[in-house]
Amino acid sequence: MTDTAPAQSEFQFRIAVRWGDLDAYNHVNNASYLRYLEEARVQWLHTFTSDWDAMGAAPVMAAVQLNYRAPIGWPAELVVTQKISRIGNTSLTIEHRIESADGRVLHADGHVVLVWIDRTSGQSVPLPDFFRPPAPR
Amino acid sequence: MTDTAPAQSEFQFRIAVRWGDLDAYNHVNNASYLRYLEEARVQWLHTFTSDWDAMGAAPVMAAVQLNYRAPIGWPAELVVTQKISRIGNTSLTIEHRIESADGRVLHADGHVVLVWIDRTSGQSVPLPDFFRPPAPR
Amino acid sequence: MTDTAPAQSEFQFRIAVRWGDLDAYNHVNNASYLRYLEEARVQWLHTFTSDWDAMGAAPVMAAVQLNYRAPIGWPAELVVTQKISRIGNTSLTIEHRIESADGRVLHADGHVVLVWIDRTSGQSVPLPDFFRPPAPR
Amino acid sequence: MTDTAPAQSEFQFRIAVRWGDLDAYNHVNNASYLRYLEEARVQWLHTFTSDWDAMGAAPVMAAVQLNYRAPIGWPAELVVTQKISRIGNTSLTIEHRIESADGRVLHADGHVVLVWIDRTSGQSVPLPDFFRPPAPR
Repeated sequence: MTDTAPAQSEFQFRIAVRWGDLDAYNHVNNASYLRYLEEARVQWLHTFTSDWDAMGAAPVMAAVQLNYRAPIGWPAELVVTQKISRIGNTSLTIEHRIESADGRVLHADGHVVLVWIDRTSGQSVPLPDFFRPPAPR
Repeated sequence: MTDTAPAQSEFQFRIAVRWGDLDAYNHVNNASYLRYLEEARVQWLHTFTSDWDAMGAAPVMAAVQLNYRAPIGWPAELVVTQKISRIGNTSLTIEHRIESADGRVLHADGHVVLVWIDRTSGQSVPLPDFFRPPAPR
Repeated sequence: MTDTAPAQSEFQFRIAVRWGDLDAYNHVNNASYLRYLEEARVQWLHTFTSDWDAMGAAPVMAAVQLNYRAPIGWPAELVVTQKISRIGNTSLTIEHRIESADGRVLHADGHVVLVWIDRTSGQSVPLPDFFRPPAPR
Repeated sequence: MTDTAPAQSEFQFRIAVRWGDLDAYNHVNNASYLRYLEEARVQWLHTFTSDWDAMGAAPVMAAVQLNYRAPIGWPAELVVTQKISRIGNTSLTIEHRIESADGRVLHADGHVVLVWIDRTSGQSVPLPDFFRPPAPR
């Protein structure tokens, strides 16, 4: 199947930094950025179906790339923007940005690759239908 | 300055998975991998100087790339291997692998870029001397 | 000094559960409850002074008691209610509840004891003035 | 059933502090203590049966009480000691201490109450047999 970008593929999610996300340098820890991306991702999957977690198959991280561009303090509100940049048979690539809520500071950008995995067999399976663009008539 | 690889540049660190590192899929969460890499990294920096954290400058993540190759369960012992692959003026690149303690399973691999930042000014500064290869005679 | 309850002593804070707060049982992990309480606490301290963290003295947990009354799933919005129940010379007791945002489910209740500690000496110090009730005329 | 203390009821578990357990005060965060207790607890349950997690019923925290007695830095090795102090029909109480690995510093002490919950119905169920003292002859 040809990789195709679907029509509506951008999602924004607002998230508040917690003081507990900071580390001993008094900045948000590098691993907490992945928590923000994860929360934005599952909230976005949740908009397709409330059952994404109970379908037998689950989205699993295959790879992540992230550039840390500006430190994040507390308190702060962030906006995570996600955009599907590639749809394959069993995987898709999502580009993401973490910005300050006012859009003035780019804190991080990069992408993740998600693979759909059958939770019993552990094998990759085709993406759920809601990622498929409608067939041409 | 030319980027140079120092003579002794590989470090291994053993770490135990905690049950709390798992997420609702009953596997180690994607962000927890970054915690393992971080712990191995600061333990490794700690072998150079116990003062790396109090030198005025601190190593900060500039970028991470990680491939998730096999899920990790609990209980488990892991070995993180780190290898300096590039030394620049203010930054270095570390290639890393997370493997099962018996070396049979590669759970993840990739690299991070670390930059040394002056904690007062926020500006990048030259790497500490212990990363510098000895000058040729 | 006699322990005294100040006039205005209740604070509510709304917090969103993150998927990453869940553990392998698919419920919010017991330690994540302390993160919710902590976030509500520092947000509340932040309403007194934006400088509470830079005053030389810092609030440190001396004790916690928490009853887990109903599991928390994801997604969910919670409300944390805090109420000062005792003010001492160097410490205070805060009673807290974690409830669903609609107020229908009590997820947890209990209390914490906070002590103000001089960050250099590690010794306890008198509470900041903003916890002191105004002297009678 | 009368509450009874079993013959062999103490368990010690050694755990390494991770740098990521620290918070912005450069000490182990209050919630991380619960992670140490949790890890010691599940490791201890694991000594009874590797299947404790798949028995249909699971141990769930009903309450925790913890006194924070001395801050914990990094790097550090800790020993968690757990002792069953009460066995009921569906719940048990475990007293715990967190000490430095050399036994010189008591970092925290307190107790938890665990309840066994049927994972389908959410109702409490009798404790697994391995907590039962042998019947007198």
